[in-house]
Amino acid sequence: MNLKKIKRAIVSVSDKSNLESLLPTLKKFNIKIISSGASFKKIRSLKYDCVDVSSYTGFDEMLDGRVKTLHPKIHAGILNIRKNKKHKKDLIKLKIPNIDLVIVDLYPFEKKLTEKLNFKKLVEHIDIGGSTLIRAAAKNFNDVTIISNISDYKMLVKELKKNKGSTSIKFRELMSAKAFNLTAYYDSVISNWINSRINIKFPSKKTLHGKLIENLRYGENPHQKGSLYSSSDNLSGLKKIHGKSLSYNNYNDIYSALSIAKSLKKNKGVAIIKHANPCGVSEENTQIKSFKNALNCDPISAFGGAVAINSIVSKQLAIELNKVFFEIILSKGFKEDALKILKKRKNVRLIDFSKFDFTSNEQLLFLGNTFLVQDVNNILINKKIKVVTSKKPTSNQLKSLKFAFNICKFAKSNAIVLVNKNSTIGIGSGQPSRLDSCKIASQKALKYLPEKIINSVAASDAFFPFPDGIQELARFGIKAIIQPGGSINDRKVIQAANKAGLVMVFTETRHFKH
Amino acid sequence: MNLKKIKRAIVSVSDKSNLESLLPTLKKFNIKIISSGASFKKIRSLKYDCVDVSSYTGFDEMLDGRVKTLHPKIHAGILNIRKNKKHKKDLIKLKIPNIDLVIVDLYPFEKKLTEKLNFKKLVEHIDIGGSTLIRAAAKNFNDVTIISNISDYKMLVKELKKNKGSTSIKFRELMSAKAFNLTAYYDSVISNWINSRINIKFPSKKTLHGKLIENLRYGENPHQKGSLYSSSDNLSGLKKIHGKSLSYNNYNDIYSALSIAKSLKKNKGVAIIKHANPCGVSEENTQIKSFKNALNCDPISAFGGAVAINSIVSKQLAIELNKVFFEIILSKGFKEDALKILKKRKNVRLIDFSKFDFTSNEQLLFLGNTFLVQDVNNILINKKIKVVTSKKPTSNQLKSLKFAFNICKFAKSNAIVLVNKNSTIGIGSGQPSRLDSCKIASQKALKYLPEKIINSVAASDAFFPFPDGIQELARFGIKAIIQPGGSINDRKVIQAANKAGLVMVFTETRHFKH
Repeated sequence: MNLKKIKRAIVSVSDKSNLESLLPTLKKFNIKIISSGASFKKIRSLKYDCVDVSSYTGFDEMLDGRVKTLHPKIHAGILNIRKNKKHKKDLIKLKIPNIDLVIVDLYPFEKKLTEKLNFKKLVEHIDIGGSTLIRAAAKNFNDVTIISNISDYKMLVKELKKNKGSTSIKFRELMSAKAFNLTAYYDSVISNWINSRINIKFPSKKTLHGKLIENLRYGENPHQKGSLYSSSDNLSGLKKIHGKSLSYNNYNDIYSALSIAKSLKKNKGVAIIKHANPCGVSEENTQIKSFKNALNCDPISAFGGAVAINSIVSKQLAIELNKVFFEIILSKGFKEDALKILKKRKNVRLIDFSKFDFTSNEQLLFLGNTFLVQDVNNILINKKIKVVTSKKPTSNQLKSLKFAFNICKFAKSNAIVLVNKNSTIGIGSGQPSRLDSCKIASQKALKYLPEKIINSVAASDAFFPFPDGIQELARFGIKAIIQPGGSINDRKVIQAANKAGLVMVFTETRHFKH
Repeated sequence: MNLKKIKRAIVSVSDKSNLESLLPTLKKFNIKIISSGASFKKIRSLKYDCVDVSSYTGFDEMLDGRVKTLHPKIHAGILNIRKNKKHKKDLIKLKIPNIDLVIVDLYPFEKKLTEKLNFKKLVEHIDIGGSTLIRAAAKNFNDVTIISNISDYKMLVKELKKNKGSTSIKFRELMSAKAFNLTAYYDSVISNWINSRINIKFPSKKTLHGKLIENLRYGENPHQKGSLYSSSDNLSGLKKIHGKSLSYNNYNDIYSALSIAKSLKKNKGVAIIKHANPCGVSEENTQIKSFKNALNCDPISAFGGAVAINSIVSKQLAIELNKVFFEIILSKGFKEDALKILKKRKNVRLIDFSKFDFTSNEQLLFLGNTFLVQDVNNILINKKIKVVTSKKPTSNQLKSLKFAFNICKFAKSNAIVLVNKNSTIGIGSGQPSRLDSCKIASQKALKYLPEKIINSVAASDAFFPFPDGIQELARFGIKAIIQPGGSINDRKVIQAANKAGLVMVFTETRHFKH
């Protein structure tokens, strides 16, 4: 057990709530308290004994309290190794008592970040003394107990009662881990904040951080444990208003769905996701038409998927939605009568994303203990479009082509997206060969919407390496193709398009996504 | 510019190299130096003036130097706001001079972690005083310059010379960012180390960290900037021995390739990857046969892919490899004559992964500023296999089924993998509908290896929701199927298998991968 008796504590907390739950136990075990500033006043006001840190160190408070605990008398009391004889001798010589318990939290820097204070005021909220106390005590957990969060008071009280004023090594090590989790998180917040302020995109040492939002039932598969973390408190504005808890794969689908929804026109459009891949997207003039068109693109795959509606769900749409089984319905809100209808289904999750905010500009891909960092792919292609065939696109075709190319960005590579007007009619994705993606897309269209293939358009996320893909698409009646261009076979590819009487435009922008 | 004159510096470094490049400039601008311990001795031995920190603070060194700089005289000198009149008065009253420059690095805790010291010795390498000095100076960057890495000495010298002994606010803020990047990284290393020691998988505050390995030419697409980070210095043992630098997508493919290679029998097997998805895997008795079988599974998709060979490449294999264009060839080594042949191709990257190590037990998926954490999917299914059809598998079938189910784990969902003996003959993956994956897999087999379909087996990464997939596979001559089971339609699915005279086994383990 390696029990250590606690005789003296230092208490300095930013969050003063809950002290009353702790102090009776400290008193019960005759634990002397050193404190300072507002914590000192609070403890005294609760009628507990307590010595001020300045009188304890003999060093007057100065610089508005910036250095009050940064004193050798405090830190020698914490950091000495109790069974080291030389350390013991040093302490006796300088009359420095041990400090066995450190109860310290940190200035709430992260919270202040959300309050839009000016820069100088924010900097003032970076805690130096508190972090040092926490780290010193956490380092010396073999002898010292560190409590760095008020939510651990309860456990401390229990531990002290159980061990009659002592703590066990197991408890101290757990508290030490939590302390370093806190200081690492705290400095990661500061580090990312300054980096973004002065536009350091790829620092030589990079940290990422998140708060545990929830332990999930399991991960991607039932035998994998999984959890959800976020650097924002409210999961960036996702509000679940009905249904069971969300799973690992649900979150993945939700992210895909909202990425597409965000790229559609404001308050327009519907995207349906299955296995993190779009299986139908539409941006027509009415909500109902958008939904029906998105659904009809691949009604079989849509089953059990996630649907994102970029507007407020009406009663009429709710009736349509209820005809299909979706695991998740995301929207910018639900009319009351719509909600009534949708809530009848027990197994659907309804989520309001009207306050949803994508704040991240970077995208991270973790591969074991290595990770890739890149800019989020949010380029606009409008200006670079170049017609390369003798036939030019009509303005309607151009609109459809741009829509199709945008959807390409969200489908896994290699991706081919077929579009009629402003709705997908066939999506081929996730194939190692581009020709295969062409085939999958056209087969889907042929199966579900054969009447819409004639005069439709196609987008490819990367260049066509050979003319075969063009020929495959032309065969089914597709009339225009949008693609980045840039293959050594571009000339042959353009020739094939001209020969088939197609329109082809180059974007000079690739949209790989893996 | 907000130039600040530097009059006094504190120098306390673990890495004492390069001090001689810095000291002449400090002397030139009459900067007084406070130092301690080995840094003090080193500066003196180089014949520069320097005052010991103990005589500066008047507090004797104690506890083997654990608290030497944790003194208000030091920290008030750093932390005071120069234009705050009250601060100024405090300093004059207590005769505390300003410290304008802090040159401090940290005990090399991370390096020590790799040295397999015992736990108590490791804890001793957690730096408290150094971290406090760095954080204090970095917080007060409006007045103070912090240099936290010897690689920045050069920039400091340049800055001081340019500004005649002063530093600009731009320089100080950049150095402050680097300082917080360091302290965040440092505590993240400690935090993850303690968490793993006491088996905290999902802490309430989680940090991740990496060192910049290289800035890549670009990210997933040319318009996205991208960089590679790793928490290990040597990229976990990947050694590039020939070819151009690796791209973002190369790293993604390499990781997929090695994940599969690692799952194959020691020194056996070949996996070919395109767009982070397998397009051919084989584990036959000879290197050549494995390679040819993996290639023949989808020779079109293999073009430009990454191939991982789980053994040392022989001359004979090199000749075969050179007949196909691969972007990357990974192996456990290359015979000298093999290397000579392979190096003839300018555009191939040759990588030795014999020292490659997957140390990570967790898998991370970043979705904007939210991330999912889960166990790596490394379950063994051997014990749970249950035959559900009247026909039982032969021992060879069972071997093939297990091999197929393992490959499923690495193909994007929904995944169907067809196997003949120990080689894939058709992989259908990345589809929102399982039936489509069945079709893609069987079409591929029909196209490239029709003679091998008869008597082959199939694996599905998740259950069949309907009998249609079974019927599709049976139609082509597949004789046995492995799948998790667990659908409400299991009975119908088993019926379909029995009706078609198939063997079917359930694993009760799902292998979704997105």
